[in-house]
Amino acid sequence: MQLYIGNKNYSSWSMRPWVLMRHFGLPFEEVMVRFDGFEPDSAFKTTIARTSPTGKVPVLVDDDGLVVWDTLAIAEYLAERHPEQPLWPQERRARARARSYCAEMHSGFGALRQHCSQNLEASLPEVGAHLLATQPGLQADLDRLDTLWSEALQASGGPFLFGGFGIVDAYFAPVVGRLRTYALPMSPTMAAYADAVWASPGMQAWVADALAEQDFIAFEEPYRTGR
Amino acid sequence: MQLYIGNKNYSSWSMRPWVLMRHFGLPFEEVMVRFDGFEPDSAFKTTIARTSPTGKVPVLVDDDGLVVWDTLAIAEYLAERHPEQPLWPQERRARARARSYCAEMHSGFGALRQHCSQNLEASLPEVGAHLLATQPGLQADLDRLDTLWSEALQASGGPFLFGGFGIVDAYFAPVVGRLRTYALPMSPTMAAYADAVWASPGMQAWVADALAEQDFIAFEEPYRTGR
Ligand SMILES: N[C@@H](CCC(=O)N[C@@H](CS)C(=O)NCC(=O)O)C(=O)O
Ligand SMILES: N[C@@H](CCC(=O)N[C@@H](CS)C(=O)NCC(=O)O)C(=O)O
Repeated sequence: MQLYIGNKNYSSWSMRPWVLMRHFGLPFEEVMVRFDGFEPDSAFKTTIARTSPTGKVPVLVDDDGLVVWDTLAIAEYLAERHPEQPLWPQERRARARARSYCAEMHSGFGALRQHCSQNLEASLPEVGAHLLATQPGLQADLDRLDTLWSEALQASGGPFLFGGFGIVDAYFAPVVGRLRTYALPMSPTMAAYADAVWASPGMQAWVADALAEQDFIAFEEPYRTGR
Repeated sequence: MQLYIGNKNYSSWSMRPWVLMRHFGLPFEEVMVRFDGFEPDSAFKTTIARTSPTGKVPVLVDDDGLVVWDTLAIAEYLAERHPEQPLWPQERRARARARSYCAEMHSGFGALRQHCSQNLEASLPEVGAHLLATQPGLQADLDRLDTLWSEALQASGGPFLFGGFGIVDAYFAPVVGRLRTYALPMSPTMAAYADAVWASPGMQAWVADALAEQDFIAFEEPYRTGR
């Protein structure tokens, strides 16, 4: 199985299935396609077009040649391929809630995703404070995160949203990275969960690789002029 | 089972699970919450907040009180609840592709969704022509639709993307409505598929209800001043 991803420092969508597979020890070969740009003639776009029907990462290619794209479809595919592993919660009601959270994340949290672009190696607390003061949607996204995480953690007992680590936690892994980069305010419950995700082995492996990249990509850097 | 939806003429997300359930004859009670506005103090928002964790429709409430929100999570939940019905394709590779298409639709086709807001009763060919001339992203979305539908239909033989009607076709039902409202150009393959979806019983039932609504909602009408 091959997983095509973008730069680990920047690519939040790539991060989700990678962290998930790594966490569960699912074997895969990583194929990194560097983000030189997203114009049609960029090396990234011309390379990934050979594999990805949408021209985006992540893309999973199974050993039989089957191409699966888009994070949520990849997650469902991995869950079907590995029924022996609890990628989704095993209880049906919990599974329905986990899927609701993931789908909500997939198309929601627009302010957080738009203004706080992923940058794992950067530390931008002043940018975070400025964004909070000027972008009302950001506080609303943080409030929703607090509600969502608190209610799931209370129901499950933690440390992850449904007890053990699963797809839904991998879905929130990039959010945890953003909360750190931009030093966004967290309730104690949020902070405890963010710490648990940060310390988890798949996440730690991804972050270590991201820090080792040392590849400053200007178009992914709205807030820095250099490393 | 209750399905909370918005106005049928306007609510594209509500349309997907409703058309799906109706197509497969899954029993449910419809609860329509009128779109008077999306401000926090609107009747829509204060009403739906009692049920929907995101303040959006659709939301499904099962008989045991379980709340499932977001279209994709609702679709997966229905597929699990009704394993006797082919909501997803039964072959695992086809199912992975169907999920990829749905997830792509869930977060993609931004130009089509942003500029061509759903309005089933309206006929706006001049607006469509103007948008096509001024919004380059729109043609790109149409091209991607053509590729996606053509490749699926060729593999399955049609008339729906994977042969029989399923979740993925319900996912594209609102797109079919937009292509008609804005009279957007279609290849013969696209037109044949759009006709098949339009003529399907769940879709016809939704459209009939939408036309009967006769409820002009100004904030959902970027292009008309009255009915
Ligand atoms: N909904 C997609 C989003 C994928 C996505 O936007 N990936 C970014 C990198 S993080 C990308 O490839 N962007 C290239 C582009 O937008 O052209 C998914 O869940 O996989
Ligand atoms: N990703 C959500 C989108 C739902 C959505 O945006 N619904 C619209 C109506 S079509 C809504 O309730 N909007 C209210 C708002 O944005 O405040 C889903 O798939 O269910």
